[in-house]
Amino acid sequence: MQRSLINDILNQGTAGQTVQIGGWLRTRRDSRGGFSFLEISDGSCIHTLQVVVDASLENYENEILKLKTGAALIVEGTLKNSEGKGQRLEMQAGSVMQTGVSSDEFPIQKKRHSFEHLRTMQHLRPRTNTIAAVLRVRSKLSHAIHSFFQQRSFHYIQTPIITASDCEGAGHLFQVTTLPPGSQRQPDADFFGLPTYLTVSGQLEGEACALALGQIYTFGPTFRAENSNTSRHLAEFWMVEPEVAFARLDQNAALAEDFLKAVTSSLLASCADDLAFFNQRIDSGVLERLHNLVEQPFERITYSEAVQILELADIRFEFPVKWGSDLQSEHERYLCETHFGGPVIVTDYPKEIKSFYMRLNDDDKTVAAMDVLAPGIGEIIGGSEREERLDVLSSRMQASGLDPEEYSWYLDLRRYGSAPHSGFGLGLDRFVQYITGMENIRDVSAFPRTPRHARVHSAVPGDQLRS
Amino acid sequence: MQRSLINDILNQGTAGQTVQIGGWLRTRRDSRGGFSFLEISDGSCIHTLQVVVDASLENYENEILKLKTGAALIVEGTLKNSEGKGQRLEMQAGSVMQTGVSSDEFPIQKKRHSFEHLRTMQHLRPRTNTIAAVLRVRSKLSHAIHSFFQQRSFHYIQTPIITASDCEGAGHLFQVTTLPPGSQRQPDADFFGLPTYLTVSGQLEGEACALALGQIYTFGPTFRAENSNTSRHLAEFWMVEPEVAFARLDQNAALAEDFLKAVTSSLLASCADDLAFFNQRIDSGVLERLHNLVEQPFERITYSEAVQILELADIRFEFPVKWGSDLQSEHERYLCETHFGGPVIVTDYPKEIKSFYMRLNDDDKTVAAMDVLAPGIGEIIGGSEREERLDVLSSRMQASGLDPEEYSWYLDLRRYGSAPHSGFGLGLDRFVQYITGMENIRDVSAFPRTPRHARVHSAVPGDQLRS
Repeated sequence: MQRSLINDILNQGTAGQTVQIGGWLRTRRDSRGGFSFLEISDGSCIHTLQVVVDASLENYENEILKLKTGAALIVEGTLKNSEGKGQRLEMQAGSVMQTGVSSDEFPIQKKRHSFEHLRTMQHLRPRTNTIAAVLRVRSKLSHAIHSFFQQRSFHYIQTPIITASDCEGAGHLFQVTTLPPGSQRQPDADFFGLPTYLTVSGQLEGEACALALGQIYTFGPTFRAENSNTSRHLAEFWMVEPEVAFARLDQNAALAEDFLKAVTSSLLASCADDLAFFNQRIDSGVLERLHNLVEQPFERITYSEAVQILELADIRFEFPVKWGSDLQSEHERYLCETHFGGPVIVTDYPKEIKSFYMRLNDDDKTVAAMDVLAPGIGEIIGGSEREERLDVLSSRMQASGLDPEEYSWYLDLRRYGSAPHSGFGLGLDRFVQYITGMENIRDVSAFPRTPRHARVHSAVPGDQLRS
Repeated sequence: MQRSLINDILNQGTAGQTVQIGGWLRTRRDSRGGFSFLEISDGSCIHTLQVVVDASLENYENEILKLKTGAALIVEGTLKNSEGKGQRLEMQAGSVMQTGVSSDEFPIQKKRHSFEHLRTMQHLRPRTNTIAAVLRVRSKLSHAIHSFFQQRSFHYIQTPIITASDCEGAGHLFQVTTLPPGSQRQPDADFFGLPTYLTVSGQLEGEACALALGQIYTFGPTFRAENSNTSRHLAEFWMVEPEVAFARLDQNAALAEDFLKAVTSSLLASCADDLAFFNQRIDSGVLERLHNLVEQPFERITYSEAVQILELADIRFEFPVKWGSDLQSEHERYLCETHFGGPVIVTDYPKEIKSFYMRLNDDDKTVAAMDVLAPGIGEIIGGSEREERLDVLSSRMQASGLDPEEYSWYLDLRRYGSAPHSGFGLGLDRFVQYITGMENIRDVSAFPRTPRHARVHSAVPGDQLRS
């Protein structure tokens, strides 16, 4: 018999149907009346299926009464309407077979474990309700992202992970090498014949593709070797980066707003049960926040207007507000949470605090950058119109201390058939954090990578975290 | 005015409609009658749009007559029925504006360049018909892969790229480090406090997730530091790896067949024009091969049966056929191309030539492995049922010289709630090669990484390749 998923059974099953499921035992309750209740989870949804097992089953005494939490079971039986509250349907078991017998006690029992403790068992924690729900939401979100861009005729480009160039001139790079550790040999002896790194962004390569294919997006892993032990930093995280030829900043901002609304709206439909779980157990503001994101039009203001608002604010900020300084998290959150009460797109930042590739505005002081700020998180998207004028880009690079020779291919994109173009980046992990309300980013990645943590299973629960 | 994509115009446009496009000039022909024809490509499809420009346009003499191949243009105009053959519609220009003026000659002119030469300009080659078509097919294929699994309620898991374990005990790993080159410092001083590598497969972590969420797939970059200069090897390539709890080998084989048929069928519909281009220009067998893949049921034979067939074959192989030796490419292709004339799934290989994690069969000689062989390429998918018995897995690991301590988390999956499970892997790049008929795998990746090649733009065209 073909196995059915519990999610399909609960949504589409009918009483009287015979089905087979495969899953893991969450709890067993034995009734004095000569039967047992098994709660079984198969990972297809947040719900378990209740299975009623009569003592008449031949392995009832010897096996079923000895089943432990965590056991893997294949169960066949008949669906019937549930008399208790909770699920609509339950199963009357015809057979219950355990597929792997273990003498050891399953390390994750019904009692609640701290997320910190669960992080030492990354191979087993997907069997908990919360981590499983996170991974389902992350999966559905990833697909909603692909679907959004594909429906709009964007081409998905897999930009390189190993790269010889360093996107933003920032440090914090992981080196990639085949030279033996401690080797005195020169880069010429290395696999690629030159120093190579893990990418921090696919943007520059994405621009090359947008200036050929029109509209593209990247979606892949990116890396930062920052020694940041916070609840918001990972050394390895996934990023989505669309890039659109001929698009100016205003179209870029419109795309970012459409994008956030569409994927959030899609999730509210496809992950209703999991999101209700997060709203009930993790963060009671989750659903309201997501509905707001979908329904409220995003405000748009310039950086200079933002500074004016912040200067007039009746609040004492930790960091002073001054035209020319970058907005801090407290400023961003004041703008979207207190002042506007909804998402805000801030544009046209001072050129000194933004990257060399952002298009210089006519005032010669600001660049066509944009940050999308959302209540509860602050900056969620950063983007810009890119500098498409060869001479301006060259001097901005020199002013930033970059070697134009090293970026000659990037300048070529302005030498030949240059066109206005814009794009933005969204960090997947932070967005999952925002959607689920999970406090620590290490709990929204299946196998998080942070300073001194690259093992699936470790004895040490984790570092002291700065928030 | 909002820009339209040429693909949408050609498919859905109507004569009389006013539209704006943004794209790149492929050719300009000037008629003595006082007008010019511009062929413009915007990357949305393989086709160009023909634009008719009258001399009456105010910038006709000064700008339009000087436009060069590769120029980026924004053109507004009215669609009209085309009188020539070719496209159904053409555009009568109302305005033509060049967005970036360049004095240099665009390096990729209309004349054909060798793919080898184009590889030295990875930032510009997406502007050629062939590479653009490859990237569109790759994008649509990637989305078809996601859609296949999502529709079947598989969860997409992003397995780690940086890893402390080495999936198959194979060498060929890239090291990831933040220690300065030549540093004598110990791994303890490194970012993760231990030696780390780029992943060669997400399978082991995928198994951990399948044994919690039921059915999952990974889809991400994987790496091999092999010094292989062939037309089939990349140091960085994308892999799809589904993993299904409670599935035995036969269900795994059925999934692989369904998967290949479904995504190929989806591509035949969504990439008809690009595939027709490949069939016409690159490999005249492309369409027939893809239709065969969709329509023919896959044969299933055991390795032992395959060896018998090969031993009886009326052909002299370069490598001898002998039970216990791995099948060579020539053997695989004989089976699917000559003997069966269609795809074949070969199962139950000798345990000595397969990985430690594959489930030992009752004969104690073979394992529940499977390779899917397809005409024109040989092995396209490799997979297996995984060993779910703790004692058998432990001894297989020891026999393979692996340290069970290092894999204790992987053994945990058998200690707690172990269940039968199966999965397979498909290399995206080789599949794109198969679909498009492109001879060299370096031409199906946007930014290929191979020994001594990690630069976007290089002076050296490439190595001598072994096939």
